[in-house]
Amino acid sequence: MAPPSAMAILNHANNAPAAIGTDLAAAVAPPAMPPLGHPAPLDADEFRRQGRLVVDFIADYYARIHEYPVRPAVAPGFLARQLPETAPAKPEPNALAAALRDVRDLILPGVTHWQSPNHFAHFAATASNVGALGEALAAGLNINPFTWAASPAATELEVVVTDWLGKALHLPENLLFSGGGGGTLLGTSCEAMLCTIVAARDRKLAEIGEERIGDLVVYCSDQTHFSFQKAARIAGIRRGNFREIPTSRESGFTLSPKALLAAVRADEAAGRVPLFLCTTVGTTPTAAVDPIRELCAVLAGHDVWVHVDAAYAGAACVCPEFRHAIAGAEAVDSFSTNPHKWLLANMDCCALWVRRPEVLTAALGTDHDVILKDPSAQDGRGVVDYKDWQVALSRRFRALKLWLVLRCHGVEGLRGFVRAHVRMAAAFEDMVRADTRFEVPVPRRFSLVCFRLRSVVVGERRRRRDDAAANELNRRLLEAVNATGRTYMSCAVVGGVYMLRCAIGNSLTEEGHVREAWSVVQEEATAILATAAPATCSDERAVGNARCGMADTDAPASVLSGKKLRI
Amino acid sequence: MAPPSAMAILNHANNAPAAIGTDLAAAVAPPAMPPLGHPAPLDADEFRRQGRLVVDFIADYYARIHEYPVRPAVAPGFLARQLPETAPAKPEPNALAAALRDVRDLILPGVTHWQSPNHFAHFAATASNVGALGEALAAGLNINPFTWAASPAATELEVVVTDWLGKALHLPENLLFSGGGGGTLLGTSCEAMLCTIVAARDRKLAEIGEERIGDLVVYCSDQTHFSFQKAARIAGIRRGNFREIPTSRESGFTLSPKALLAAVRADEAAGRVPLFLCTTVGTTPTAAVDPIRELCAVLAGHDVWVHVDAAYAGAACVCPEFRHAIAGAEAVDSFSTNPHKWLLANMDCCALWVRRPEVLTAALGTDHDVILKDPSAQDGRGVVDYKDWQVALSRRFRALKLWLVLRCHGVEGLRGFVRAHVRMAAAFEDMVRADTRFEVPVPRRFSLVCFRLRSVVVGERRRRRDDAAANELNRRLLEAVNATGRTYMSCAVVGGVYMLRCAIGNSLTEEGHVREAWSVVQEEATAILATAAPATCSDERAVGNARCGMADTDAPASVLSGKKLRI
Repeated sequence: MAPPSAMAILNHANNAPAAIGTDLAAAVAPPAMPPLGHPAPLDADEFRRQGRLVVDFIADYYARIHEYPVRPAVAPGFLARQLPETAPAKPEPNALAAALRDVRDLILPGVTHWQSPNHFAHFAATASNVGALGEALAAGLNINPFTWAASPAATELEVVVTDWLGKALHLPENLLFSGGGGGTLLGTSCEAMLCTIVAARDRKLAEIGEERIGDLVVYCSDQTHFSFQKAARIAGIRRGNFREIPTSRESGFTLSPKALLAAVRADEAAGRVPLFLCTTVGTTPTAAVDPIRELCAVLAGHDVWVHVDAAYAGAACVCPEFRHAIAGAEAVDSFSTNPHKWLLANMDCCALWVRRPEVLTAALGTDHDVILKDPSAQDGRGVVDYKDWQVALSRRFRALKLWLVLRCHGVEGLRGFVRAHVRMAAAFEDMVRADTRFEVPVPRRFSLVCFRLRSVVVGERRRRRDDAAANELNRRLLEAVNATGRTYMSCAVVGGVYMLRCAIGNSLTEEGHVREAWSVVQEEATAILATAAPATCSDERAVGNARCGMADTDAPASVLSGKKLRI
Repeated sequence: MAPPSAMAILNHANNAPAAIGTDLAAAVAPPAMPPLGHPAPLDADEFRRQGRLVVDFIADYYARIHEYPVRPAVAPGFLARQLPETAPAKPEPNALAAALRDVRDLILPGVTHWQSPNHFAHFAATASNVGALGEALAAGLNINPFTWAASPAATELEVVVTDWLGKALHLPENLLFSGGGGGTLLGTSCEAMLCTIVAARDRKLAEIGEERIGDLVVYCSDQTHFSFQKAARIAGIRRGNFREIPTSRESGFTLSPKALLAAVRADEAAGRVPLFLCTTVGTTPTAAVDPIRELCAVLAGHDVWVHVDAAYAGAACVCPEFRHAIAGAEAVDSFSTNPHKWLLANMDCCALWVRRPEVLTAALGTDHDVILKDPSAQDGRGVVDYKDWQVALSRRFRALKLWLVLRCHGVEGLRGFVRAHVRMAAAFEDMVRADTRFEVPVPRRFSLVCFRLRSVVVGERRRRRDDAAANELNRRLLEAVNATGRTYMSCAVVGGVYMLRCAIGNSLTEEGHVREAWSVVQEEATAILATAAPATCSDERAVGNARCGMADTDAPASVLSGKKLRI
């Protein structure tokens, strides 16, 4: 499918002289100087040929991806040792084909196959045909839509598609352009957090004075992704002013409104200034859902910016049955989710919506616009200049792939996709529960199942030691499972309890892969239990009535803090 | 080219059981549950078919890109009005083909064609076949190499390729991994600035106490890209502690070491703490080159982090004849350049090197590694975890495209590419100088030519008014030139003088396009001069001996501040 002819295009542009086509024909006569080198860096015919090589390479990869061990068995330095120390002076003949052979023979054996149907370790980085091809198309057009004028259609498509996505996710109207808010597409959740913290910070400092930056306090739970702490630190929030509020098993590891309010009041009483709360819909360790409505309610009158980080689970809101997860979001200041996680949009794509774009652009906007807004550009009033919504000036045309995904799958297609993964997770949970050696220590949420070998409790005095032993047992189980290369899972430590995480969500994953993964876990558990020391061995008969390590612990979830990585 | 067979791969992985291939064959038997929806989001055969559509679309676009007006003549809302308010519930038949038709008919007529050979407005966003296809390949693999363990080959390729590029650019050894430093690939220069400011900030605050963040001062010139101010603000540097040191025509709009030292001493005397200097190699308005060696020399003993922002002109250092531009870089703390600008790497790709990676990772690193570094992962000591080198956790596999570019063009190919653009710029400069109505108010550097219609000076009293009139005349000239759609240039205002910028660097630009662009400028100048008011009209005969507005002004470059946008 070719773009339209020159004259059609030029007639479309209402201020282009009608005779341009002729002039241009003269202008593109053979150049008087030598071409830009061999091979020409950009060449339509060669692109067509090389593009097919790459498309076929990717298609072949998908066709055989299940044959790769999910995680490579390589040692540090394996690849660096195989490559020369300097770039070649001249390209070899058929350089792209040679390079693709090296991708096949050197690189693919050393990557973790995130698209493998057997990858259950992290919240998925779902790929789709149109997501990948949308990236390819954006890379091919290679425009830089930092302002409306720098590429009007790209900016407008982003405005349209963030409203489309927001509506598809049942977001409150006040976060959409159509309701006075608005959305943008960034790279990652950490960027979204950083941009909103900076917006909140500058608004607050404008009130209380820049010199009080050291008094600003930010809040989250001990389940919040570590990106939030990183973003707050980057924004200059003092390390001591980062409040990580402990959660507990009783509240399902969600942030307690009461505890939050107590922390805010304590800071206020001490003369500090509460600034920002990061709530999470779908925490990394257990996919817990913070109670947005109640959290916003207790903060009423405290002027704290409330952000919702729904990086993974936000996608589930395409399904009406999961919309309750963001109940109360009408009161938040900003909301982000990553379509590159569970909405087929390929890396990278984080959608951020804000209720008051003017606060964001006041902090991140710039007025050095002589070059960007050259005198002949359209009057910029009323248009969105996305450079003022993000850290950087330059940006990719991310809207294109998200638009293709929504267009080619439809909202119902996305619902079916999410529901299929949730069904598979439920099936996996059922398999775990049917094996009495195992337990499901926290409720399954969305498509994440946390599970573990039970610990044997033989008396109050021994419980603590046995918990540690059970943790060690499960750690060994995960190690053994992953060493097979047949599946790949991760772990979380919550409330002092080590558990395995099976996060379902890859585009190629089907129920057979889930069953296979469970078989691997069972086989490895049997092998480990057979060799475990008697004191820690989970005997099937004994365990049947044992209390699980989880049920008894009152330890706050922050006892071990290694649970905050989203992926 | 297909990946190797299952057994070959599994034998390559030294801890994978030999029998896995058989097990997996069973595992991928037809699923018992319904597939993930229609169409399947990821499907090898469909990818092959759809991929060809997209490849052909891009190739056709390149073949006809010169037929588009460079900048679209559209009004705000033109696209939004043509699209529905919500995403479709279900995809239409052949949705991708339909979407591509809309890209052709609705979107392409509304984008600014950055890859047009007639685009001279901004420092180029050079595209190449392999750059675009490298992005496509990375999007297809869709891995997330945030740590070594999360995708070992991707991390190691980034280590290798940043050293390759650093050597190709003749960077000091101490910025490379091979010399104790190291590089990473980020999205943009602003990210590079932000990460290094935060690294410098946290190192300094660890010495003097977090409460002194308000005392930290950062330095640059009035020619520095506004991204630096934005990055500093994001990092919490007080607005009042941003020192934008005026430049002048006498120093070629470069940062004066003497003026810098005076500013640093004044801050120290006032009890403030000098933190960070951003030098520029190739400023946005005029591609001026700050004297790195001398700037570092005057800062000796002041413990100020020195960063080199060589976003555009860093690429020129592939040519030995331009290496002098970064003379003295051995003493800097960090250096960044954008291969997506002038090194064929497509959006987005910013290479950042630091002399002491441990300072960067101390500020941006995290230790919440239970999930990421699961127990079965390789011992992480000694490996690079790139999440600790950047703002975000997630990241794309950018190294792949840069490696393809270096591999498929070779260092000599890149040199030929840069030199061809510099030759074209020299040819353009010659054409300007041959027309006595025009002047070249600042020296051409690299591939950027700044030029303007001369102002007529008829007496000292009238000079100021005439300068303003000349600026207005040139503003009108740019407007007229860009309104043709046949070429697209931008402007800069330096030292009070408005000039047009012709930035040469697109992959498809050949000498014929440059000649055509100059013809457009001449034609529009003739038309404008014919209608200009006599007081401001530049008459060819009169202008021949006139003094140019630039030569006489002593106004600092900061009189008008709209000159700092890189692109």
